[in-house]
Amino acid sequence: MKTITLGLLGFGTVGGGAYEALRMTEEQFTKKLGVKLKVKKILVNTLKKKRRDDIDPSVFTTNAKDIIADPDIDIVAEAMGGIEPATAYMLEAMRYGKHVVTANKAAVAHNFEILTKTAERYGVLFRMEACVAGGIPILNAITQVLQANKFEEVLGILNGTTNYILTQMTKYGLPYEEVLKDAQEKGFAEADPTDDVEGIDVANKLSILMALSFGKYVHPTEIPREGITGVTMEDIEKAKAEGKTIKLIASAVDNNGELEYSVKPVALPNDHPLAAVSNEYNAVFLKGNAVGELMFQGKGAGALPTGSAFGGDILNIMALSGGKML
Amino acid sequence: MKTITLGLLGFGTVGGGAYEALRMTEEQFTKKLGVKLKVKKILVNTLKKKRRDDIDPSVFTTNAKDIIADPDIDIVAEAMGGIEPATAYMLEAMRYGKHVVTANKAAVAHNFEILTKTAERYGVLFRMEACVAGGIPILNAITQVLQANKFEEVLGILNGTTNYILTQMTKYGLPYEEVLKDAQEKGFAEADPTDDVEGIDVANKLSILMALSFGKYVHPTEIPREGITGVTMEDIEKAKAEGKTIKLIASAVDNNGELEYSVKPVALPNDHPLAAVSNEYNAVFLKGNAVGELMFQGKGAGALPTGSAFGGDILNIMALSGGKML
Repeated sequence: MKTITLGLLGFGTVGGGAYEALRMTEEQFTKKLGVKLKVKKILVNTLKKKRRDDIDPSVFTTNAKDIIADPDIDIVAEAMGGIEPATAYMLEAMRYGKHVVTANKAAVAHNFEILTKTAERYGVLFRMEACVAGGIPILNAITQVLQANKFEEVLGILNGTTNYILTQMTKYGLPYEEVLKDAQEKGFAEADPTDDVEGIDVANKLSILMALSFGKYVHPTEIPREGITGVTMEDIEKAKAEGKTIKLIASAVDNNGELEYSVKPVALPNDHPLAAVSNEYNAVFLKGNAVGELMFQGKGAGALPTGSAFGGDILNIMALSGGKML
Repeated sequence: MKTITLGLLGFGTVGGGAYEALRMTEEQFTKKLGVKLKVKKILVNTLKKKRRDDIDPSVFTTNAKDIIADPDIDIVAEAMGGIEPATAYMLEAMRYGKHVVTANKAAVAHNFEILTKTAERYGVLFRMEACVAGGIPILNAITQVLQANKFEEVLGILNGTTNYILTQMTKYGLPYEEVLKDAQEKGFAEADPTDDVEGIDVANKLSILMALSFGKYVHPTEIPREGITGVTMEDIEKAKAEGKTIKLIASAVDNNGELEYSVKPVALPNDHPLAAVSNEYNAVFLKGNAVGELMFQGKGAGALPTGSAFGGDILNIMALSGGKML
């Protein structure tokens, strides 16, 4: 049986989740694709930390070159986070002829053009499903099944932390600071929540979503952006009285050929499909000229949902590059 | 520029919708894929009927062999409906080395194994996204992005006509016969609604959905099936009083390795994501061991939504077989 060899950059939440998702279904996909997946090397920060018992310690390395330049490795899966050195590693891996999968929305959003152009030049596949809305298979839908459409509107609730905070404020009438503190204690929000609550994370995701659905790349720092720190209980009560719910919405709308985009809190009418998406759930609502209105809802974060998307990309590349065409 | 040549079997609602969806985005995908699509022949029942002005009359034929056996044709797109001769035509086209796309759920559900095995034997691609839930990209999600998952549960509202009828009965307290008559007058229900209201159409879709998500093919006539003709106003009122909504649910659940499946009216708790899916909308709710709960909602029928899925499959085959790998 043919073996496809993978190198994994990073073994935190996303990398570990992907590893777990792949292991859980190993047998199933080997049977289906007629190809075996071997994880040859995993890049970590330190070799001193105790890792999973079922992985041979010699698999771990602290030297990225052991993965990027290894001629045996077919696919490099990047789950390190941070813009650099992740981008440099991905580009280098492509130049070595390796397919690249990433879950790193900041790196992709900031360097979309160079990454996609380099992949094209070196004839390798570049996949990023896990970057946007975690486990929800939205990017594949847009680039594959829905490609016969011209998109008119793409709206998303793309950050679980802020959606959780807004949901709790709306449901229990608790002020922002109190809910944030509670979310931090429960592990739903980071100790430094800036990227989430200021909409920076969402802007990265919207940048990728727009590039794929409208073919227009906008650098994430050029997307008009407003987070949820300014949302008051008065705003929420006012929206409620008007039959509306406040959500942090990433929006891209084609207005007669002019793409309008923003990340900001929006009071959605309660009968809008996105208004009912609560707590840590993510959702994407879109309109295509053929398909009409579609909505996708699911978990946008977490090790396994993200691992599901990341693993799906890896399996898809395996199928395209070595196994059966699915 | 490379040209990929298509033969279309059938030019009714689905075939015409697919043609329209492809035309609407022709320029966009030619640019994206670097491949041009040429519709060389279209199979119709009669040459006497007036067709679209923008199609050269010589494109139409009443002889399927003109398409199936034409060495110039790369992809055969089947949108005739009916189990035969559609199945025979698809098999024959595969034997001639052609990729096949179909929107014909009855033909696929009844002949899933021979169709998939023949495609495999002749090394051609076989795609059927439009068969289940119209424009909702559920099959691609299951077979591609979510393939790192083992599925635990797949539930669907897969028939717009019955969902419309049940929604109207629930919302306005109107009896079944009255709503059906109204739906027929509005064109939402066929003159002979048997396939829809008896759950036959849904059983076909569930058969395909199970084969792809659980790897288990069950002939549609072997799926326990109950339609909506027996749903009374008393049932609906009783469900309402219990905080539930009656929906025609296609269900496949993995119960410790044993797949349990059925098509029947189910009183869903109002907080179930499928309970709020109204009128002609379709939806699929699934649980995967990695991704958790996902829901997809959109239009399950109609020329353009179905054409969107059908066109997406065609473009995907174009990309895989002749253009850039996407």
